[in-house]
Amino acid sequence: MTVLPETVEGIRREVCALHAELVRWGLVTWTSGNISARVPGADLLVIKPSGVLYEDLTPESMVVTDLDGTVVDGVHAPSSDTDAHAYVYRAMPHVNGVVHTHSPYATAWAARGEAIPCAITAMADEFGADIPVGPFALIGGDDIGKGIVATLSGHRSPAVLMRSHGVFTIGASAKSAVKAAVMCEDVARTVHLARVHGPVEPLAREHVDALYDRYQNVYGQQAARDAKEGGHS
Amino acid sequence: MTVLPETVEGIRREVCALHAELVRWGLVTWTSGNISARVPGADLLVIKPSGVLYEDLTPESMVVTDLDGTVVDGVHAPSSDTDAHAYVYRAMPHVNGVVHTHSPYATAWAARGEAIPCAITAMADEFGADIPVGPFALIGGDDIGKGIVATLSGHRSPAVLMRSHGVFTIGASAKSAVKAAVMCEDVARTVHLARVHGPVEPLAREHVDALYDRYQNVYGQQAARDAKEGGHS
Amino acid sequence: MTVLPETVEGIRREVCALHAELVRWGLVTWTSGNISARVPGADLLVIKPSGVLYEDLTPESMVVTDLDGTVVDGVHAPSSDTDAHAYVYRAMPHVNGVVHTHSPYATAWAARGEAIPCAITAMADEFGADIPVGPFALIGGDDIGKGIVATLSGHRSPAVLMRSHGVFTIGASAKSAVKAAVMCEDVARTVHLARVHGPVEPLAREHVDALYDRYQNVYGQQAARDAKEGGHS
Amino acid sequence: MTVLPETVEGIRREVCALHAELVRWGLVTWTSGNISARVPGADLLVIKPSGVLYEDLTPESMVVTDLDGTVVDGVHAPSSDTDAHAYVYRAMPHVNGVVHTHSPYATAWAARGEAIPCAITAMADEFGADIPVGPFALIGGDDIGKGIVATLSGHRSPAVLMRSHGVFTIGASAKSAVKAAVMCEDVARTVHLARVHGPVEPLAREHVDALYDRYQNVYGQQAARDAKEGGHS
Repeated sequence: MTVLPETVEGIRREVCALHAELVRWGLVTWTSGNISARVPGADLLVIKPSGVLYEDLTPESMVVTDLDGTVVDGVHAPSSDTDAHAYVYRAMPHVNGVVHTHSPYATAWAARGEAIPCAITAMADEFGADIPVGPFALIGGDDIGKGIVATLSGHRSPAVLMRSHGVFTIGASAKSAVKAAVMCEDVARTVHLARVHGPVEPLAREHVDALYDRYQNVYGQQAARDAKEGGHS
Repeated sequence: MTVLPETVEGIRREVCALHAELVRWGLVTWTSGNISARVPGADLLVIKPSGVLYEDLTPESMVVTDLDGTVVDGVHAPSSDTDAHAYVYRAMPHVNGVVHTHSPYATAWAARGEAIPCAITAMADEFGADIPVGPFALIGGDDIGKGIVATLSGHRSPAVLMRSHGVFTIGASAKSAVKAAVMCEDVARTVHLARVHGPVEPLAREHVDALYDRYQNVYGQQAARDAKEGGHS
Repeated sequence: MTVLPETVEGIRREVCALHAELVRWGLVTWTSGNISARVPGADLLVIKPSGVLYEDLTPESMVVTDLDGTVVDGVHAPSSDTDAHAYVYRAMPHVNGVVHTHSPYATAWAARGEAIPCAITAMADEFGADIPVGPFALIGGDDIGKGIVATLSGHRSPAVLMRSHGVFTIGASAKSAVKAAVMCEDVARTVHLARVHGPVEPLAREHVDALYDRYQNVYGQQAARDAKEGGHS
Repeated sequence: MTVLPETVEGIRREVCALHAELVRWGLVTWTSGNISARVPGADLLVIKPSGVLYEDLTPESMVVTDLDGTVVDGVHAPSSDTDAHAYVYRAMPHVNGVVHTHSPYATAWAARGEAIPCAITAMADEFGADIPVGPFALIGGDDIGKGIVATLSGHRSPAVLMRSHGVFTIGASAKSAVKAAVMCEDVARTVHLARVHGPVEPLAREHVDALYDRYQNVYGQQAARDAKEGGHS
């Protein structure tokens, strides 16, 4: 299958634009988070350049790498997290978008190494389960990627709290991975606040199942579900 | 009584515009909250489309349904919370606006299933009482609507904390329901913060009564009180 | 002494514009705070209209009252807190500006009825002491005004935490009262956060004195000190 | 070495513009923080004027002083923290930028006099260690400057929490000192939040070393590393 140049251009624009959502929802500080998308039908991904401020990002500054993280096209060095993104795309063919942040409330759970209990209906809707903790892993090589894949394989949650590090989310599209990152911080904050003044009861498993099933299949507009923007499949 | 098309158009514009207040005051994340208004003199309501981002909302994208939640006019699917809104309008004829959010501090109280004690004068002004907790109820059908109505009937508070879920507010107008949602999060935050460092004494009942009576009848401009924007009646 | 119409017009513009600072610094929700200024050389004040949203304020919508709170000029009803502002101007001739907010961290201290200990240098600079708690008082009549004056008379702090209610600040100008309200919330937040993880030692009295003296007399630009914008005298 | 006027002009523009980052990232309230930069090849620095609001800053309003803090050029009085900035430049020739804030979470740690433990990877990246506490020191004279230099000399961290006061950061450029101030507040917040619900394990020393070494030498774009914008080295 041939990759059309216009496809790559469109993905550069989309990945660039989605970074504004990380800023808008308060998930990133300085240059700390990044988004990538798989190039459909090719062993390629498009990712944020390393250490570039969000307001300086342009579609042209996005970096194209192969699924080993080697730069194929781009004038900048890719995100230092590229190895982790690439590993996820190699191991999880249904994933087309990956997001990484150090959003504060979610990273606080990660720092304690504690999963976020599924205690509110919005969390059952989006995550269908607790948001799990992945192993501590050093950057460089495949350790982070392996930790993400090992934790999320067979798990409903599109988000993992990497121990003492931060959040990685996956999605059937880059936009759905961004949504998962936004919702992860939202529920991390609400459950954090709730526990400040007393114990919080997790939802019953049957209620989680019912909410998750409905949200993934009924919520939103049919066209968006078809485009896999709403759920994480 | 005939519903004039221009009336419905005006309500579409108003409901659309009010969603910007949910964003401005930090009550919503991604697509998580919604507003509806009753169409005066008709068994109809106007509500946000499901799963559409706030910046993409237009008056035309608002959905008109009957009071059973069946779409009467609109190109989108209505909010997945439409059943709850519709139930409230059927059961509470004085209510002309309903708002639903997962605003973080208020939802934290909901996650613990704890009413917010009426401990500051701004809360006595707007709510006239503790903000009560409603039952846990699954989305789909009338359970959420029944829980809202059962909790708020005969209660001064225009806000209810639905257990493990979030906030619903009612008002004599959509704007007054929005105001109640904004103030609910504000007092949820202040009382949360206050209790972090020690016990918080609720206001005496007589003081709550005096503050509530004055605020509902003296505060603001006469024209706004006549238009039922200030209070929730 | 005659009051020139252009003086009143200038104060209407200034009081209107300063309300934007309350919004910018997150001190107010919906219509919850207000600012007034004394008209120099007259027994008059200019204050926010009651219940009007901040974005709808115009210089013309500001209300002029005498120092008993009776409207002298203006098409709107004045803030429901006008009695308290007016009492302060009657009792404290050096005060030319008054601000009232329910800013969340400061109001949390007020809800517990606990003074904010002077534990950081920025607080010694601006307040020169603990920020004291005033009595609980119902709105209407002079009770709130009396509580403010009784608490702040002879006190360095330009801010008082009215019990279970919120913050009032005074200043030699409206702008300096706004600054005191902004800094009150800032130090209320920092000391709140500090105490979450352990005890916080107040500054030694001699250090507070030295910092306060320097800040009131050396900090800022000479012209601003002459205009009484920086300190609260 | 002669200082070209255009060099000073460029630094005035840079220092002025960087103050917007303090506002954007929520590190400052009213006029509470300041930035300076060394003039290359001269015993001069450029710093914020005292007590001027951030939105009123212009390149022309920046003040040039010698390294004793005496004004050399400028129509305003320099920041009241100029002595501390000047002391750092005298004692630390590799430092070309200094930032001071009272950012809330970091100042909360400073109020308790507690170092921020290096417990998350983003903190190991930027700070390479705990963020240390410096002594309590009164403003005026060299005490604050001496405390900063004594604490940071031989320390990897570009940030120090001055006891009961706030944050000072240093950098090989003003921009890198700003980055350190932004990241200091970010990690202060995350570790604060993490500890609310249980103990937080510091990272192993070997992991901190590996992360710090990689971030200082591999992260970002080569050109930025060459310009010393990324690290603090």
